[in-house]
Amino acid sequence: MLDTYPDKQIKLFSLTSNTEIAEKIAKTAGIPLGKLSSRQFSDGEIMINIEESVRGRDIYIIQSTNFPVNDHLWELLIMVDACKRASARSVNVVIPYFGYSRQDRIAAAREPITAKLVANMLVKAGVDRVLTLDLHTVQVQGFFDIPVDNLFTVPLFAKHYIAKGLTGDDVVVVSPKNSGIKRARSLAEYLDAPIAIIDYAQQDDSSREEGYIIGDVEGKKAILIDDILNTGKTFAEGAKILEREGATEIYAVASHGLFAGGAADILETAPIKEILITDSVLTKEKLPQMLHYISASELIADAIIRIHEKRPISPLFAYNHKEN
Amino acid sequence: MLDTYPDKQIKLFSLTSNTEIAEKIAKTAGIPLGKLSSRQFSDGEIMINIEESVRGRDIYIIQSTNFPVNDHLWELLIMVDACKRASARSVNVVIPYFGYSRQDRIAAAREPITAKLVANMLVKAGVDRVLTLDLHTVQVQGFFDIPVDNLFTVPLFAKHYIAKGLTGDDVVVVSPKNSGIKRARSLAEYLDAPIAIIDYAQQDDSSREEGYIIGDVEGKKAILIDDILNTGKTFAEGAKILEREGATEIYAVASHGLFAGGAADILETAPIKEILITDSVLTKEKLPQMLHYISASELIADAIIRIHEKRPISPLFAYNHKEN
Amino acid sequence: MLDTYPDKQIKLFSLTSNTEIAEKIAKTAGIPLGKLSSRQFSDGEIMINIEESVRGRDIYIIQSTNFPVNDHLWELLIMVDACKRASARSVNVVIPYFGYSRQDRIAAAREPITAKLVANMLVKAGVDRVLTLDLHTVQVQGFFDIPVDNLFTVPLFAKHYIAKGLTGDDVVVVSPKNSGIKRARSLAEYLDAPIAIIDYAQQDDSSREEGYIIGDVEGKKAILIDDILNTGKTFAEGAKILEREGATEIYAVASHGLFAGGAADILETAPIKEILITDSVLTKEKLPQMLHYISASELIADAIIRIHEKRPISPLFAYNHKEN
Amino acid sequence: MLDTYPDKQIKLFSLTSNTEIAEKIAKTAGIPLGKLSSRQFSDGEIMINIEESVRGRDIYIIQSTNFPVNDHLWELLIMVDACKRASARSVNVVIPYFGYSRQDRIAAAREPITAKLVANMLVKAGVDRVLTLDLHTVQVQGFFDIPVDNLFTVPLFAKHYIAKGLTGDDVVVVSPKNSGIKRARSLAEYLDAPIAIIDYAQQDDSSREEGYIIGDVEGKKAILIDDILNTGKTFAEGAKILEREGATEIYAVASHGLFAGGAADILETAPIKEILITDSVLTKEKLPQMLHYISASELIADAIIRIHEKRPISPLFAYNHKEN
Amino acid sequence: MLDTYPDKQIKLFSLTSNTEIAEKIAKTAGIPLGKLSSRQFSDGEIMINIEESVRGRDIYIIQSTNFPVNDHLWELLIMVDACKRASARSVNVVIPYFGYSRQDRIAAAREPITAKLVANMLVKAGVDRVLTLDLHTVQVQGFFDIPVDNLFTVPLFAKHYIAKGLTGDDVVVVSPKNSGIKRARSLAEYLDAPIAIIDYAQQDDSSREEGYIIGDVEGKKAILIDDILNTGKTFAEGAKILEREGATEIYAVASHGLFAGGAADILETAPIKEILITDSVLTKEKLPQMLHYISASELIADAIIRIHEKRPISPLFAYNHKEN
Amino acid sequence: MLDTYPDKQIKLFSLTSNTEIAEKIAKTAGIPLGKLSSRQFSDGEIMINIEESVRGRDIYIIQSTNFPVNDHLWELLIMVDACKRASARSVNVVIPYFGYSRQDRIAAAREPITAKLVANMLVKAGVDRVLTLDLHTVQVQGFFDIPVDNLFTVPLFAKHYIAKGLTGDDVVVVSPKNSGIKRARSLAEYLDAPIAIIDYAQQDDSSREEGYIIGDVEGKKAILIDDILNTGKTFAEGAKILEREGATEIYAVASHGLFAGGAADILETAPIKEILITDSVLTKEKLPQMLHYISASELIADAIIRIHEKRPISPLFAYNHKEN
Repeated sequence: MLDTYPDKQIKLFSLTSNTEIAEKIAKTAGIPLGKLSSRQFSDGEIMINIEESVRGRDIYIIQSTNFPVNDHLWELLIMVDACKRASARSVNVVIPYFGYSRQDRIAAAREPITAKLVANMLVKAGVDRVLTLDLHTVQVQGFFDIPVDNLFTVPLFAKHYIAKGLTGDDVVVVSPKNSGIKRARSLAEYLDAPIAIIDYAQQDDSSREEGYIIGDVEGKKAILIDDILNTGKTFAEGAKILEREGATEIYAVASHGLFAGGAADILETAPIKEILITDSVLTKEKLPQMLHYISASELIADAIIRIHEKRPISPLFAYNHKEN
Repeated sequence: MLDTYPDKQIKLFSLTSNTEIAEKIAKTAGIPLGKLSSRQFSDGEIMINIEESVRGRDIYIIQSTNFPVNDHLWELLIMVDACKRASARSVNVVIPYFGYSRQDRIAAAREPITAKLVANMLVKAGVDRVLTLDLHTVQVQGFFDIPVDNLFTVPLFAKHYIAKGLTGDDVVVVSPKNSGIKRARSLAEYLDAPIAIIDYAQQDDSSREEGYIIGDVEGKKAILIDDILNTGKTFAEGAKILEREGATEIYAVASHGLFAGGAADILETAPIKEILITDSVLTKEKLPQMLHYISASELIADAIIRIHEKRPISPLFAYNHKEN
Repeated sequence: MLDTYPDKQIKLFSLTSNTEIAEKIAKTAGIPLGKLSSRQFSDGEIMINIEESVRGRDIYIIQSTNFPVNDHLWELLIMVDACKRASARSVNVVIPYFGYSRQDRIAAAREPITAKLVANMLVKAGVDRVLTLDLHTVQVQGFFDIPVDNLFTVPLFAKHYIAKGLTGDDVVVVSPKNSGIKRARSLAEYLDAPIAIIDYAQQDDSSREEGYIIGDVEGKKAILIDDILNTGKTFAEGAKILEREGATEIYAVASHGLFAGGAADILETAPIKEILITDSVLTKEKLPQMLHYISASELIADAIIRIHEKRPISPLFAYNHKEN
Repeated sequence: MLDTYPDKQIKLFSLTSNTEIAEKIAKTAGIPLGKLSSRQFSDGEIMINIEESVRGRDIYIIQSTNFPVNDHLWELLIMVDACKRASARSVNVVIPYFGYSRQDRIAAAREPITAKLVANMLVKAGVDRVLTLDLHTVQVQGFFDIPVDNLFTVPLFAKHYIAKGLTGDDVVVVSPKNSGIKRARSLAEYLDAPIAIIDYAQQDDSSREEGYIIGDVEGKKAILIDDILNTGKTFAEGAKILEREGATEIYAVASHGLFAGGAADILETAPIKEILITDSVLTKEKLPQMLHYISASELIADAIIRIHEKRPISPLFAYNHKEN
Repeated sequence: MLDTYPDKQIKLFSLTSNTEIAEKIAKTAGIPLGKLSSRQFSDGEIMINIEESVRGRDIYIIQSTNFPVNDHLWELLIMVDACKRASARSVNVVIPYFGYSRQDRIAAAREPITAKLVANMLVKAGVDRVLTLDLHTVQVQGFFDIPVDNLFTVPLFAKHYIAKGLTGDDVVVVSPKNSGIKRARSLAEYLDAPIAIIDYAQQDDSSREEGYIIGDVEGKKAILIDDILNTGKTFAEGAKILEREGATEIYAVASHGLFAGGAADILETAPIKEILITDSVLTKEKLPQMLHYISASELIADAIIRIHEKRPISPLFAYNHKEN
Repeated sequence: MLDTYPDKQIKLFSLTSNTEIAEKIAKTAGIPLGKLSSRQFSDGEIMINIEESVRGRDIYIIQSTNFPVNDHLWELLIMVDACKRASARSVNVVIPYFGYSRQDRIAAAREPITAKLVANMLVKAGVDRVLTLDLHTVQVQGFFDIPVDNLFTVPLFAKHYIAKGLTGDDVVVVSPKNSGIKRARSLAEYLDAPIAIIDYAQQDDSSREEGYIIGDVEGKKAILIDDILNTGKTFAEGAKILEREGATEIYAVASHGLFAGGAADILETAPIKEILITDSVLTKEKLPQMLHYISASELIADAIIRIHEKRPISPLFAYNHKEN
């Protein structure tokens, strides 16, 4: 099935963070992954050798920037540098999970805006275009002046829940914190369901259990939605509050699953029936049993082909474009 | 009281959009406004003559970019160009109201990100620093790579309501739409009050009346909070919903008051007891009778002096820095 | 006649300043104008939606930057930003009338060079090429480092006057001020006619009537030539001086007709037989009765097609290329 | 008299093109010239060693870019590079004669704009400011986005002629070609004299003798004015035409005297009583006997000190600022 | 001893890679290290909070970029971003060990030049100046256009060996590979000793033992010199060859000691009497017993103070400046 | 044979420094040289007119930057500027000899890095790609962020010596100074020969004769190799030392032959049997009798065609890629 795409002007390469999604994307697109060697020396330095010509080609580099984020970012930057010096015509980076995206503003005096720094580094290294998936904050697109295509995951999730019959007033879509309400609103519209929010009287982590719900969840099937599942605490606590307030079944869905240290254990003790996640992140962490993966590879492959063929990608998120 | 600030290295200039706040800032800082002439010719072109030397000085230019935003932006860019060519040491722009800040993301296919464009234009023209007030989205700071100091208005508002005794569980702070919840959360913490949100089942403007409240407002004094008061519709509709749901008194507060065509009339027919607003925007539009202005000029003057004297400005928003 | 140009790689868009010339250009080129919506909100902010895909295409945006120049410039910058973010391959701007071009030097201490600022803003926004018509000063080309094609209007005018028999020693081409002598020289060569200059002993506007002629006009048919007709005063006063000095018939020609407030009345009382102007500017001002329009649309359409087809545009101004 | 200027923050350096004017400037300013060695190897490469520390200092480099212009430009660029890498706080270049300034526009298809290229090279190398003298075209200031102070020579010339009694209607200031009329106008205002222009029916050099005068010179003392005296042909031919048309005495003045191959001989056979020139260019060419030098060194030294002390330089050209 | 430096305009900060050398530098300079918190989250992302004002100050950030190099580089870039946004006047980075410096050229087709990439990233993030120690290749200075001060370690080493009496013809300075000859030459001049080189007939690592000596070592005390001691193999093999060829005592010296996995064991079995190294790198690896550290902290502290006080740093390497 | 290459998208132009190699390249490639006029005026300024359209074409400009290097560099920069403004699609410069490449580091305090300056100037002027031959230091590639293809000459030389039977242990490849050892190593591997180095106890030019050999040359045929043959002294002295130490036959080879003033005489008196050189430099200097030219034109022509056809150029240096 690979190597069926007729135009050899385009080349795909996968770096080391998520070779599984890269292989799926390559298979769907019918374009084999290019050959390269990426080694890390004993002093931590990364050396990349591209093992086939990229001269004059349009290169797509697939790399998620999850843990270890700094290694994955440098590997990406080094690959971009190598492509530019080797006369690639364009360098397009496909970042299913965009690390550091939560550091998108100055929350306290003298903080960096690391998401902007990452954007600047990518562009300075020579990136011509970014293709990514469900950015933490849509304003991050504006951190770039090159084209950034931000694919949405909500339609994928909606399809899954509609197939399960999770629609209508019986269901409530819940944002587990007050900053995620737009994402909840978007899924709720697909499911014709109302929304609710979990708010915390105190915002610091030490006393997070004091959360309470704004909105009505009693007797409803609740779907918690967030963009990033990191330590699992936000979902676990949200689920407990929902259970306490009378939700009958609790689901959780996130675009990116990091499952950092111990998340699986925390989540398995929470009253969550199913956790839905895309394959944007490939992790070696332990995964909870109720986890269900849904692949974003077809969406991404379709986007790559549309970009290459100069066809619009807007049809890929036709249903929810108002929800950005 | 003017001309009492001893260091003549700093110079303030006001362009034409909001000379009232500029004069207050100048008075508070003890620095007279520099002399310049800004004319608009019959063909719409603006010509600026700076009528005193700026060579080697640190220049602060005060200009809000409200209506007519395009004229005000060009006047600002032209002034920056003139200062740079006339050998100013640094050019700092003070933008109490930052126009186009709502165009901060691509909401539908092929839209611009005009807030980023404005940032790029300012920097390319030669701006070294931006001082602004309650940006619509805090991520806009990241649209710049130069220092941007974003002053908060919530402490000013909190002081006003605390003086009126509007604190505690009797009060509810209400975000009139689902995107403003962080600002509501911030004011609520000052007032030790809970929050609520007004959500709309359909998002397009034609059918906005179908809004409903998430949270509890019955029997409470409600304070609607938003950053920009434009046509007045959001507040007017929010107030009606709050009244319907049993709020006993309704207040409204926004950082920036544009009062575009007919806002005064719409607001005067709504059940709002008082509208609180800063003087960031000077408008010729009709103003509603229950309007109460609170000046941001002391806050801005204090920030300018701190910046010039290399003292931190973080003390100016010490109480709410976690709320960004 | 539209949509006859076979290569769909190129797309034309018209913004709002001069849709008439844009439609003529489109018709001549056989390329339909692309669909977009450009709205101006009550607060003056402009919002553009491009309503068809521009991905990978070569975009030509037609916009004159006459009154209201600041709105027209921002509309252009915003459109450029939208095209870049929507993955246009190249963004070419067609500016039949280039506003602010007279602010091309520092004429007094601490003045801006706004024409350079405009150039910088266009390039920073993402413009790849400029196509314009008879720049006020040819040095403005050097304000850009991208390709700028500056089309000449003198051949169009020469053709008109030759058809009328206005050639030879009976005719004198007159520059109505001492800075326009090169343009007069260029037309004079086409018409085999001598030149003259109107000079003013005092340069400030209050006492302009004291002008006098350098050169010989008595008994001749005089053609006043300038690049921009703004308030009409320069032509009206020049015509009176020419009449006083014995010119038998007086014509006036300019590339760009702004006709700012009252120009029509001023011109109609002057002894001018015919005013010739291109359609670079579409104005709502009152126009004088002796005005004759000549369209630059074919010239521009021809240039666009030549640029797109990588053919030289120098043949378009073969006769007068020495006159720049 | 050297080393009397108290502030050691400023350092002057002279490169090799015009050490005479550099020494005069240094003497007037009371600042000794810094030590450096500039060698040219047998392969033509230039090597500069700065022989005293420039760390943290404001450096002024004096270099005219006359013949051999390419060597002088590279020497300047290399010196700027060395200063930047050696941690100079600012690098200011003083260019009494700015070479390549006549290549300021595209006069024929596919020509470069070398004056802009020079500007770009200087800025990219690290120049922070330019101080120059009577630029060929004032628009060249706009080729830079850094501050450019362009000193005027006309007041120096006016003082000279007023001292000689060359004022009033007996005198006529003549532009020897149609592009220099503004410079003639400026001198004429100082001298209360009328102006005239020499125009050429054919513009190419082969047949230049066919020039004729626009304006009235009979019985008057004529002063030919130009910015650059290169081969001397323009002045020599202009003088012959003036003599033929009845001028009684003929003077010539230019800011920059190149006297390229044979100019002295050509000029000595022309009916010119005195040629006035500044010392912006130091040439090894033969000089005509009627040449009178006037030094621009005091003007330049005054400007350097004013720039360093953050005082305006506009007083240096107070009388003629309208004439730019 | 800390806080004795009187000028508070300068602030030092240490990141996490080498706090020991940072503390020594701070102590020597009399400037306390500024307060900051640098945390690494479970997903690998680094968050920095600067806990004191840096507004208007000159900041020096001390960070070696050894293992884990990618984390240390991102920590540095993030700190630079934070300083810039917090209005630091200048951001100077002190990099005792500059990681990735060996990737300074394209050694095989399609390789990156990662040292240049690192330079570009630092500059784009906002670095104004670099202070480093014995760069692997001096050309890396040219990868920057900002000032880079590269301190030399050879004088420190020479002093050590002279004190031991290791000078004259009894001694030979040996480059353990053909690319390090310049460094050997420099030390040899201090010690009045000849040099030798170890060359390898085959360059790939699998067959490195076939090395042979160019030059004369029999009966001499040999000092192997290199810039980076990484796995220890180069020194261990070099020592064996030297012993085989009759060297009587073998010393080894390098500027930067990484001691990657197992280096201590390899070195302890080699016939090396003493290994001399600076404290540029702080490693948790096992260290060989014959290791002797020499601190570069005084040299660095002296350079920082000289830079801040605008005094030349050339006296710091007065004796060997010809050896670059 | 010219004009046989079918794709007219590519155009070659030769500037004035080495028209001989340009004509050979053009002939080999089957692409005629484009028409241009390059004049130098009496004041040293260069004016270029490109006499055929370059719009939308990929332009390759051939220019060596040997003596007079500053003129040749400006001619190149001006041509690049002209191509960019005339809408060339890409501007590729072919620099067989890259002048100023030895100024690649700061060798003494406050020196420039002129090779980097040259790189910056080329890129700023608009160069998209560089094709060059045997750079003095490979790190100079990293002075650029655009693609730089650096062709190797050692395979050409190896072929020549192998044909002469100069291989094996009878032969020794000698670096005439300690910095050229890598180039010697590379040739030695082709010839299966050992290497030696000539070292100088004192490095300054006044006492260079005290050189001595590290390695074994007695009874061998020695080949001195360097990149640049400038004054001939290095080879002449090296040859004398080799003769003294017992070499039986002495050859010399360099990539670039400048033969600056008197080199021919110096070399003819040295015991060198043959000097081998490429035609990268066209010089008017006297040449020594034992000189043998070898053309790099086929190598360069092949590289140009491969670049244009997006085929890898790595096969052109397949045998020695490890030797960079």
